[in-house]
Amino acid sequence: MAKLNVTVVGSGNWGMAIATIIAGNTSRHDEFEDNLTVWMFEEEVQHKGVKRKLSEVFNETKENVKYLPGITLPEHVKAEPDLKKAVMYADVLIWVLPHQFVARTVQNMGKIKDTCVSVSLIKGGLELEGGKLGLCSDLLRKLLGHEVGVLMGANVANEVAAGEFCEATLGIKDKKHQATLVKLFDCRTFRVTAVDDIPGVELCGALKNVVALGAGFCDGLEYGGNTKAALIRIGLQEMKTFIRYFYPEVKDSTFLESCGVADLITTCFGGRNRKCAEAFVKAKGTKSWDMIEKELLGGQKLQGTLTAQEIWPVMQKHNLCDKLPMLTTIYQIAFEDRAPWAIVKLPSGMPTSAFHEDDGFFEKK
Amino acid sequence: MAKLNVTVVGSGNWGMAIATIIAGNTSRHDEFEDNLTVWMFEEEVQHKGVKRKLSEVFNETKENVKYLPGITLPEHVKAEPDLKKAVMYADVLIWVLPHQFVARTVQNMGKIKDTCVSVSLIKGGLELEGGKLGLCSDLLRKLLGHEVGVLMGANVANEVAAGEFCEATLGIKDKKHQATLVKLFDCRTFRVTAVDDIPGVELCGALKNVVALGAGFCDGLEYGGNTKAALIRIGLQEMKTFIRYFYPEVKDSTFLESCGVADLITTCFGGRNRKCAEAFVKAKGTKSWDMIEKELLGGQKLQGTLTAQEIWPVMQKHNLCDKLPMLTTIYQIAFEDRAPWAIVKLPSGMPTSAFHEDDGFFEKK
Repeated sequence: MAKLNVTVVGSGNWGMAIATIIAGNTSRHDEFEDNLTVWMFEEEVQHKGVKRKLSEVFNETKENVKYLPGITLPEHVKAEPDLKKAVMYADVLIWVLPHQFVARTVQNMGKIKDTCVSVSLIKGGLELEGGKLGLCSDLLRKLLGHEVGVLMGANVANEVAAGEFCEATLGIKDKKHQATLVKLFDCRTFRVTAVDDIPGVELCGALKNVVALGAGFCDGLEYGGNTKAALIRIGLQEMKTFIRYFYPEVKDSTFLESCGVADLITTCFGGRNRKCAEAFVKAKGTKSWDMIEKELLGGQKLQGTLTAQEIWPVMQKHNLCDKLPMLTTIYQIAFEDRAPWAIVKLPSGMPTSAFHEDDGFFEKK
Repeated sequence: MAKLNVTVVGSGNWGMAIATIIAGNTSRHDEFEDNLTVWMFEEEVQHKGVKRKLSEVFNETKENVKYLPGITLPEHVKAEPDLKKAVMYADVLIWVLPHQFVARTVQNMGKIKDTCVSVSLIKGGLELEGGKLGLCSDLLRKLLGHEVGVLMGANVANEVAAGEFCEATLGIKDKKHQATLVKLFDCRTFRVTAVDDIPGVELCGALKNVVALGAGFCDGLEYGGNTKAALIRIGLQEMKTFIRYFYPEVKDSTFLESCGVADLITTCFGGRNRKCAEAFVKAKGTKSWDMIEKELLGGQKLQGTLTAQEIWPVMQKHNLCDKLPMLTTIYQIAFEDRAPWAIVKLPSGMPTSAFHEDDGFFEKK
């Protein structure tokens, strides 16, 4: 059997970090061609006082000096700035681009193999069509016409690249592809669990950023650890209620994987959404989200407020606000001048658990 | 219908805190007699320079000056130092004593109503009979001969008493009692969800302290947020594997309630088990658990190391060590001089998720 060629489409911080993991596996497992191709969008960089092309510097030094400085990748990782060349022989494409570049990149990539499969590592982008909640992996599947899985989890790029232990969840339907793709990602420091639930895996990644705003409000009000744990738990439950409304087939167990509870915990204790939401409360109405973003994030964008604004009309259109009191309250605190302490005044008499099979919510709707 | 009399058996820190919650509900709901009795073990205390009885001071001031100083309970909470008098008219007994005093207290309490029901808030005590894992609520049920539920959750007593928002999980079988008991505990700042899964609720409370040792090792080694989130997630999964081995009927959903994920999060980020385990790693083998306990806890006992030692022979006897690599590693680091970084070198090829219904583990055993 021919060995599988793998290409990472994207060479930002997370793309380079996952390339370090994948490169270890392509050389370790017989299924894969050793060489790993990374499509690197060409940029000029200053390197040792000289203006040079990023991909050339990478191919000489095996370091992405702009997006993952300090980490040397294995010799068999090759940067390819020509998109068509990067993908034409690929059997597996790993998508790790900003959401907004996906469509254009697919249009420009030319012919790919008919047997190709893809995995999307693109986080946080929601596809909203006609007020329905959609997935970035659906968009990719539509554009590419082949199978698309997703990989999400509690993964900060620099920690993954440095070989710190963490986990991720692979969502993919086809069982044979599942086994191969687990081999492509899983290693001793990056533990991958496969599930067949793509919407569950992908949507947890987007919604957790909104819950993290709630955790940040809680920190800004200096509430104790029990209150914060309660809010994280209620947030996880509302994530499930929301996702299940659009994808009733999503399983309870997905929320207990790395993509669910672990990613949520990391985001609610570290992460920029939590941090900015804390600052928002401490500023007592004197600072806008834009100002806080500028002060604290040094050019990076805040995902949670964006997602909160994207899902708000969807929640209203589908009459979900009553079912999602915490997500509703987070939106109102963030954008409608509601008092931040409303976060702990959720209406009583709510169905307090979305995890009971017998709560009747999904039957009633 | 006669109003229900409620007695809290125990007047320590958590007993007094839950009495503040219950007292609000006995006066708010018609089902209950307003007056709430607290059985207060008689002690002498210094109060305003005079040696006095704790229960007398409480009944004058409505403050338990020794165990919950600074909080004034409502007028209708009465301390009763005579155990027999405290329980003889009770329709509901709330057990909140140290585990080791349960049997003796039941023996000394005399006649109680035939229709009485109990709720145990006793955390952390495992009943090990012949190498099998048992429950403190089983012991109570055997001794009392009536229905016994449990209430557990992410609840630090002082935060609950101060009215900070948190949640708890009530485990009880009988549906009619369930509705009444939710009313007894649930209020705006203390949100109670009822489930019918007693072993799940009770055992989470004990095992989380062992997982918290792992979180403390992780902190002592200064690993990042993703690693810690991964360990918490794996710990939750192993709690489930362990509990399910002895109680196969326990539900996935229980682990997503306050007693499961929320209590685990609080314990792994705050809490004394985490703190002492961090100190243990940082001492690099120079300090015993006893020394650390003495230095950091000021007389309080460390629960996680005790539980780890209790469950270790049970794990060995039932050949569970292979199925529980993290709990095994935590024990070995704590008591067998294994290197603390073994916590992130869990064997690969493990069934990485105990939450998949199709992993075949329970069929195989």
